[in-house]
Amino acid sequence: MEIITDPASMQKLSKSLLSAGETIGLVPTMGYLHEGHISLIKKARKDCSMVIVSIFINPIQFGPGEDYGTYPRDTQRDRSMAEKAGADYIFKPSVKDMYPDKFSTFVEVVGLDSIMCGAMRPGHFRGVCTVVIKLFNIIYPDRAYFGLKDYQQYLIIKKMVKDLELPVKVIGCPIVREKDGLAMSSRNKHLSASERKSASILYKNLLLAKEKINNGENNLIKLKKICEENIKASADVLKVDYFDFRESETLEEIGTLKPEAGKKQIKKLLIAGAVRVGKTRLIDNLILNISNF
Amino acid sequence: MEIITDPASMQKLSKSLLSAGETIGLVPTMGYLHEGHISLIKKARKDCSMVIVSIFINPIQFGPGEDYGTYPRDTQRDRSMAEKAGADYIFKPSVKDMYPDKFSTFVEVVGLDSIMCGAMRPGHFRGVCTVVIKLFNIIYPDRAYFGLKDYQQYLIIKKMVKDLELPVKVIGCPIVREKDGLAMSSRNKHLSASERKSASILYKNLLLAKEKINNGENNLIKLKKICEENIKASADVLKVDYFDFRESETLEEIGTLKPEAGKKQIKKLLIAGAVRVGKTRLIDNLILNISNF
Repeated sequence: MEIITDPASMQKLSKSLLSAGETIGLVPTMGYLHEGHISLIKKARKDCSMVIVSIFINPIQFGPGEDYGTYPRDTQRDRSMAEKAGADYIFKPSVKDMYPDKFSTFVEVVGLDSIMCGAMRPGHFRGVCTVVIKLFNIIYPDRAYFGLKDYQQYLIIKKMVKDLELPVKVIGCPIVREKDGLAMSSRNKHLSASERKSASILYKNLLLAKEKINNGENNLIKLKKICEENIKASADVLKVDYFDFRESETLEEIGTLKPEAGKKQIKKLLIAGAVRVGKTRLIDNLILNISNF
Repeated sequence: MEIITDPASMQKLSKSLLSAGETIGLVPTMGYLHEGHISLIKKARKDCSMVIVSIFINPIQFGPGEDYGTYPRDTQRDRSMAEKAGADYIFKPSVKDMYPDKFSTFVEVVGLDSIMCGAMRPGHFRGVCTVVIKLFNIIYPDRAYFGLKDYQQYLIIKKMVKDLELPVKVIGCPIVREKDGLAMSSRNKHLSASERKSASILYKNLLLAKEKINNGENNLIKLKKICEENIKASADVLKVDYFDFRESETLEEIGTLKPEAGKKQIKKLLIAGAVRVGKTRLIDNLILNISNF
């Protein structure tokens, strides 16, 4: 399996693949692959005749003081994992090739980008949209695969693709979890042994919220407080960035599931949280079908 | 010649044209075609096997109080002019189809977009970039043709294409002028008879600046003042938005052409101006080769 580093060479190769009638599946990653990424590659392998995995730690989606410098890296390991999962090519460009001197064009999805993770990480989704549109224009994928752990990112990219009429199908794939429920993430590598133990508490509270709702709780403002307090009380290393209940497409905050006069009942509820475990920021979510309420 | 209004149908047609090996030339316009547009269509006709003219008065590039509502429109006339000049298709989408409810994705070229016309029209170039990337994604042109009257727009689109790796060649075409030198513009239609007489004064001052520089003037700050005063004194209806001397690629303001220690002499000087003639805003420019100074 070849690793291509030059954007112009990648673009040339993609064009020739397309001309030859191949269907290109793109799995964009920041490397340090885990089972979540592997599931995306395997899904792409099933759907497409060519699978390209991009590995690029995108500096413009990191804010000052974030973990750009320490984001885990291991190209050898990534290469063998991607190959084993069925990738045909890895595209691994340099920062200088992706953002040459005087680079100044940015893509943003206004509104969706300034809540939840966007509120804590200003400019983050602008950086994501910009690199993703570049990857699309270099690789010409028919389909692009994103993990649903980054649910807000998935929604924003789908919105960008729709709004700008980009000729690519965006596919969201289920979260892959460790045995204790912790969502797979390259950043889990940063956790100390004791932090690792506390890290699954976010997911446990997503499940708790789900259970309470299934048992008839409809006051989500109350439930939000309970879960936030729970998480804080569980371990000293845990800080809550947010724990939100939102409509799954518009990301509108939902305070109650009680039917309200003149308001349409939502169909799918997103329960999403972000916590800091020591210096590491982790996110997770689940989607609850409430059409049968 | 067919007029296509539905973006999805246009995209389908473009795909089939590409599959059939056609080279697509796109001439994006806001309609009310004039000889400037015709020169773009003819150039596209020479270069490409298929020529598509888009007609779309793009609301998001107009600010509040600007002339979106009164921008001249005449589809019948546009149709026959485009056909006569050699266009194969007109793409004329509705505002609702281009910007459906909750449209929220925007593209911007930071820096270049906030000077000159961008300083007077905040958000204007963001609107231009967004519609142009949409047109590219609907029409898949190999080449796109822009008039150099809108020189800043041309530079910004070239930058966007480069930064985002868009697979299209951006081609700038010379300004076409009326007999008295006035640059062709759909907005000239707005001018009253007396305003029309004064409108060419901007160009006359671009020529004056050029002549003075060719005769050895290198103090551009002084020259800027002279030209601004000239324009204002020429007619009561004239107001100067800007009259600038800038490096032609970076748009860096140039105050002197005198060689300065440690500074590289520029090669091409843009002299660009925007004036208001009554309620109508007109722009014009010329580029001066000064490599032989």
